[in-house]
Amino acid sequence: MNITILGSGSFASAMAMHLASLDHSVLLWSIDGEQVDTINLTGYNTFCFQDIKLSDRIKATLSLKKALDFSEWYIMAIPTQFEREVLEKIACITKASGHMLNLAKGIEISTGNLLHTVHAEICSNFTYSALSGPSHAEEVAVGCPTAVALASKTEGEAQKWQRIINGNHFRIYTSDDVIGLEVGGATKNIYAVAAGIARAMELGDNAIAALACRGLAEIMRLGSKMGASPLTLSGLAGVGDLMVTCYSMHSRNFRLGLAIGQGKSFDQAVAELGQVAEGAYTVRAVVENSKKFDVELPLAESVYRVIYGNESPQELLAELFARSLKPEMRFQ
Amino acid sequence: MNITILGSGSFASAMAMHLASLDHSVLLWSIDGEQVDTINLTGYNTFCFQDIKLSDRIKATLSLKKALDFSEWYIMAIPTQFEREVLEKIACITKASGHMLNLAKGIEISTGNLLHTVHAEICSNFTYSALSGPSHAEEVAVGCPTAVALASKTEGEAQKWQRIINGNHFRIYTSDDVIGLEVGGATKNIYAVAAGIARAMELGDNAIAALACRGLAEIMRLGSKMGASPLTLSGLAGVGDLMVTCYSMHSRNFRLGLAIGQGKSFDQAVAELGQVAEGAYTVRAVVENSKKFDVELPLAESVYRVIYGNESPQELLAELFARSLKPEMRFQ
Repeated sequence: MNITILGSGSFASAMAMHLASLDHSVLLWSIDGEQVDTINLTGYNTFCFQDIKLSDRIKATLSLKKALDFSEWYIMAIPTQFEREVLEKIACITKASGHMLNLAKGIEISTGNLLHTVHAEICSNFTYSALSGPSHAEEVAVGCPTAVALASKTEGEAQKWQRIINGNHFRIYTSDDVIGLEVGGATKNIYAVAAGIARAMELGDNAIAALACRGLAEIMRLGSKMGASPLTLSGLAGVGDLMVTCYSMHSRNFRLGLAIGQGKSFDQAVAELGQVAEGAYTVRAVVENSKKFDVELPLAESVYRVIYGNESPQELLAELFARSLKPEMRFQ
Repeated sequence: MNITILGSGSFASAMAMHLASLDHSVLLWSIDGEQVDTINLTGYNTFCFQDIKLSDRIKATLSLKKALDFSEWYIMAIPTQFEREVLEKIACITKASGHMLNLAKGIEISTGNLLHTVHAEICSNFTYSALSGPSHAEEVAVGCPTAVALASKTEGEAQKWQRIINGNHFRIYTSDDVIGLEVGGATKNIYAVAAGIARAMELGDNAIAALACRGLAEIMRLGSKMGASPLTLSGLAGVGDLMVTCYSMHSRNFRLGLAIGQGKSFDQAVAELGQVAEGAYTVRAVVENSKKFDVELPLAESVYRVIYGNESPQELLAELFARSLKPEMRFQ
């Protein structure tokens, strides 16, 4: 089958390689002419993976029109904050229908919305699905075993994508809870920052697990107010992604937390990383949402206060432990 | 307050130190006269922690009668397979009532039962509560931040224990789902063995997270058939304990898996560890229960086949990835 991937970053490339391994033909859309030429002429996407030869079934194009004409199956792998811009371009070029699967995770900062909402607003002629779960691109690219969840409003649409993508070392589980899937992917970065801080403070394994777990309880409380099923969040897109992000040095958010926990300011930490980790944006949107939906998120608020208020993690930790006594689960 | 701890192992000692830090007086019951003398004469429990001085508020006794007379609040920290024997001794000594809180995790192999069932059978004159969550004793003993769940049939009873134990770096969340709490604590060791195998096979971070996550889905499916709420299993006693066990070298079960993944036989691995890790027992009871409750547990079965059938993890991995396509959540 022909499949279009909009985007040409590391997850786009890793997914292209997986799809090619299942005998699909893939066209990557990139906004960088040099990258397009490098991929088409050398067979390497050196912008992401220096040493990995791409399959002959993978080509790239600068033309969005060509990319859209190549297939009716579109995989979106665009950075969250640029998603709206690309969708608007697509809406200008075509009113045709097709199947869209989104790999991006996060919240649109300007509106506080999840990505399915942005899609519905601009490109409602395409069916919408989302894929999420513990899937570091570096590992997917070299064929490490990976399992993810894929949600559409209808189970039938999710199953269509499942049949296309599932195979070899990449396993897909379907779900009909798009909101749950997107809440998990969007929020976990916040708790990865917290895990990095805790690791730098040498709080121990019990503390990291407690933090991830109470982070999950926050994600579930917020998610359930936003229309997600808490159970989706105990799946690959919630627990799974949280685990891989809180325990892996691959994660930029974890490394941001590490630097902050070592006593660096947010600005110093960002300078050291060379970029702002997504969690630093998301935490602002999530703290806004906690007010809008009237839900307590003490850990997310602490991360916010460390990053934007320059407060001390030590004092916030003491504050968290001094909170009033609670039952464990409070959605109902 | 006076609190009795039945048991004198590392978690019993760590809990005693925490309780003493909250100004409680603690009497530990031990079956080892030398250990009792060492604790009372030197103030060290050198059988567990060489270098940690116990508080003066902690004493030990060989006499079960004295231990039972010391308090009406009993914390049970007995290895799972010896719990029945101790309860029977207690039932012979006293018909008095009191409050019992169980720290042990696991399934009674001879009956396949969870521990609240064993208690109800023998000591129904005591109220029953259970404590579980990510709480390596080595860390609790030195005051690392730790959060756990504590369940009783009634929220009121759980809150009583919460008020006694919560404080300093040890935080308690209450629950009324005793079955959920016990299923989580009993089953996670199986998946820690699997995580150790995957780590030794260098499958990557995605795979470990997927494994823990699909393990959680199995725990939830089994738990929900046994009467647990799946949501409890997404809390500290499920996800939390699973994380700490799957990612920590403190865990004997993880280390058992590591050795097996490095190509050692089960017997060689046990010889190397110096003891059988609990997961190796539990997996037998859980595979039995999967038949009894008619629920599919492919990961638990794979661990069983590696340990008792000497099958190759590589082949079982391929088999797991070749299973028919599934939706993510299937309790209902």
